[in-house]
Amino acid sequence: MPAMNAFYAQSGGVTAVINATACGVIETARKHKNKIANVYAGNNGIIGALTEDMINTNRESARTIAALKHMPGGAFGSARYKLKGIEENRAEYERLIQVFKEHDIGYFFYNGGNDSMDTAHKVSLISKKLGHPVIALGVPKTVDNDLPVTDNCPGFGSVAKYVAVSTREAAMDVASMAKTSTKVFILEVMGRHAGWIAAAGGLAGDKPQDAPHIILFPEVPFNKRAFLKRVKDCVHEYDYCVIVVSEGARYKNGKFLAEAGTRDAFGHAQLGGVAPVVAQIVRDNLGFKYHYAIADYLQRSARHIASAVDVEQAYAVGREAVRYALAGKTAVMPVIKRVSDSPYRWKITDAPLARIANKEKMLPARYITKDGFGITAAGRRYLEPLIYGEDYPPYINGLPKYPTLKNVAVKPKLGTKFVV
Amino acid sequence: MPAMNAFYAQSGGVTAVINATACGVIETARKHKNKIANVYAGNNGIIGALTEDMINTNRESARTIAALKHMPGGAFGSARYKLKGIEENRAEYERLIQVFKEHDIGYFFYNGGNDSMDTAHKVSLISKKLGHPVIALGVPKTVDNDLPVTDNCPGFGSVAKYVAVSTREAAMDVASMAKTSTKVFILEVMGRHAGWIAAAGGLAGDKPQDAPHIILFPEVPFNKRAFLKRVKDCVHEYDYCVIVVSEGARYKNGKFLAEAGTRDAFGHAQLGGVAPVVAQIVRDNLGFKYHYAIADYLQRSARHIASAVDVEQAYAVGREAVRYALAGKTAVMPVIKRVSDSPYRWKITDAPLARIANKEKMLPARYITKDGFGITAAGRRYLEPLIYGEDYPPYINGLPKYPTLKNVAVKPKLGTKFVV
Repeated sequence: MPAMNAFYAQSGGVTAVINATACGVIETARKHKNKIANVYAGNNGIIGALTEDMINTNRESARTIAALKHMPGGAFGSARYKLKGIEENRAEYERLIQVFKEHDIGYFFYNGGNDSMDTAHKVSLISKKLGHPVIALGVPKTVDNDLPVTDNCPGFGSVAKYVAVSTREAAMDVASMAKTSTKVFILEVMGRHAGWIAAAGGLAGDKPQDAPHIILFPEVPFNKRAFLKRVKDCVHEYDYCVIVVSEGARYKNGKFLAEAGTRDAFGHAQLGGVAPVVAQIVRDNLGFKYHYAIADYLQRSARHIASAVDVEQAYAVGREAVRYALAGKTAVMPVIKRVSDSPYRWKITDAPLARIANKEKMLPARYITKDGFGITAAGRRYLEPLIYGEDYPPYINGLPKYPTLKNVAVKPKLGTKFVV
Repeated sequence: MPAMNAFYAQSGGVTAVINATACGVIETARKHKNKIANVYAGNNGIIGALTEDMINTNRESARTIAALKHMPGGAFGSARYKLKGIEENRAEYERLIQVFKEHDIGYFFYNGGNDSMDTAHKVSLISKKLGHPVIALGVPKTVDNDLPVTDNCPGFGSVAKYVAVSTREAAMDVASMAKTSTKVFILEVMGRHAGWIAAAGGLAGDKPQDAPHIILFPEVPFNKRAFLKRVKDCVHEYDYCVIVVSEGARYKNGKFLAEAGTRDAFGHAQLGGVAPVVAQIVRDNLGFKYHYAIADYLQRSARHIASAVDVEQAYAVGREAVRYALAGKTAVMPVIKRVSDSPYRWKITDAPLARIANKEKMLPARYITKDGFGITAAGRRYLEPLIYGEDYPPYINGLPKYPTLKNVAVKPKLGTKFVV
């Protein structure tokens, strides 16, 4: 079989290490030129394939590709764009396969979360039907850590490390000021449906007096009375109270504390600003001086404090995806399997996309303390290894040095427009 | 003259490197046991002296004291507590000197900002009058970088680095998502009156297309029309727009964009939440999808990404303060003098507190671009060296390892209560 090209696309919210996965895909593909001629990357994710707007990564030097390992953001652009069901929009799938066929693309690596795994799965199925079978693999990426089957998701370890480190640092600040100033500090973190990121804040301390004193998980309905009692008790006992709140924190009736009413491209409610809501509850009921931080994109782009384990795993899933593809496996995703907690050992294996697509893994109840405000020893055992190790980017003049890609376009062959 | 004790207190909002200054003070004092017997630290700053609640730092090991160099927060507690004028509250000064006298304290090192320099100055004057002359030195500390005379303030370089790095990272995230998602990203940073911290965000990029595309300084009255035009132009030209906004951004009439109406212990308006205000202006007028982050305490406690220059200078001002004191200098503050920009060279010299107390150094107009939205080459030349170098703390299990102090109390001798 002559060598085919590969198409790689980044999807959904980017992470501090998604480019490490790109690095794993491209470097591994380059070792198998007899099978994979070029790796094309979608300019702005899957949209790049639909609009025939692709980047030839072969035009980048080995040094630039290696530097992707420490570059945050999405090197080729990502997209919040979900392909609809085949019945609803068959034209999109036909167009995708047409582009793949025209550009001799026989491999599809889709680097994303739940929705992307669904798309990769569909591409694998429909490409056969349309007479141009494509080996389609999902490659996991999500700060939310909510993909099933895999022990954890690349991208999560680094945001977890950022949140744990930031919580510990800010708590030391607040503790030293509490006598005459701020008594309650609130850190808002991501995690729309699952409390994995909020839980990571719990790594900052492990004794009752340590911050964070309260974590508000999406999985635990907000109990205002219990919350206020705990805040009051903390300020009484420790002089201050540090709260990590998930953007997805909600009331018993399912309503988000920070419901904003707007929705994103996937129809998910767009959130923001739960911290001021929590602050107001504290102020109105207890009157304590408060401060709050909203980490927002800082948390998922903080490559400067990435977890070394996360970087290694992000690279590994990219590398293994290519190896699986070359072994003829399709409609699978490389998953991380934990071999042992201590010492932490893991390996990569593969799992069918059908088992992963469109499913969410919530924080298990056994990781949440009985009072609903903290993480258990089991939770800590799970989370801790994921933030192990530092993997600092190189610096020049005090700032991280990130590569500049040439991003040379692949010459369009179809020449027909496609509106997404 | 027999050896006297020294009193060291941290004042005001802490920084990522204020403990490096404490380290400089204590390590240097320990080299001169014949003159400085013990360094007592105020538990919660100056309040610790007033209430006779002091910590004997001599009870800490050399290793613990050395570790202060990489510990954020205030190791002994800080306080937002300003001594009033002598006429208004003579009792406070008398109490202070009484405690100093009782504990053989002949040296006072006050580590803070403008207000603290004023207090140190007053203590130097009044202690003579009250018959117990104390050598009183100010030691500079402020993330706001607003002390006059000194080229820059320890604490600023690290927050500047945090803001520059975070802006660069978040911008890469936004840039890669802009096609289908967030187009405008807003980062709110500290700086109540002076735009130094916001200006540091400008280091993240140096070409017109680089983020941040807009900086909103307290020094430049907010011009809504010009602002909206620039946002629109950026989204048009670059697909996205990154804004760094100072919490002190204000309208032409002086009103803060985020006026909250509450005031802190010093009578300063307490701010918070300018980012959502700016976001709303963007949404209401241009309709772009936005995200915002509020760095709040994360920025000034981020020891994990401290500037090596800042750590070195923070240590140096502590060390030199002790040297000046031992040389008999009083009512002075060690100041940083820039010798050259490139290569960056600096030295420490001393300046009288009278020249520093209660004065604020604003961002000079020549550091702000003509349109008011960016920093000039001169501004960059000034700011850049302050973020040079990384000085990472040690890590254990993925988290920075910060020292635990014994904080052994100095036995009270007066035994009388003093209510602050």
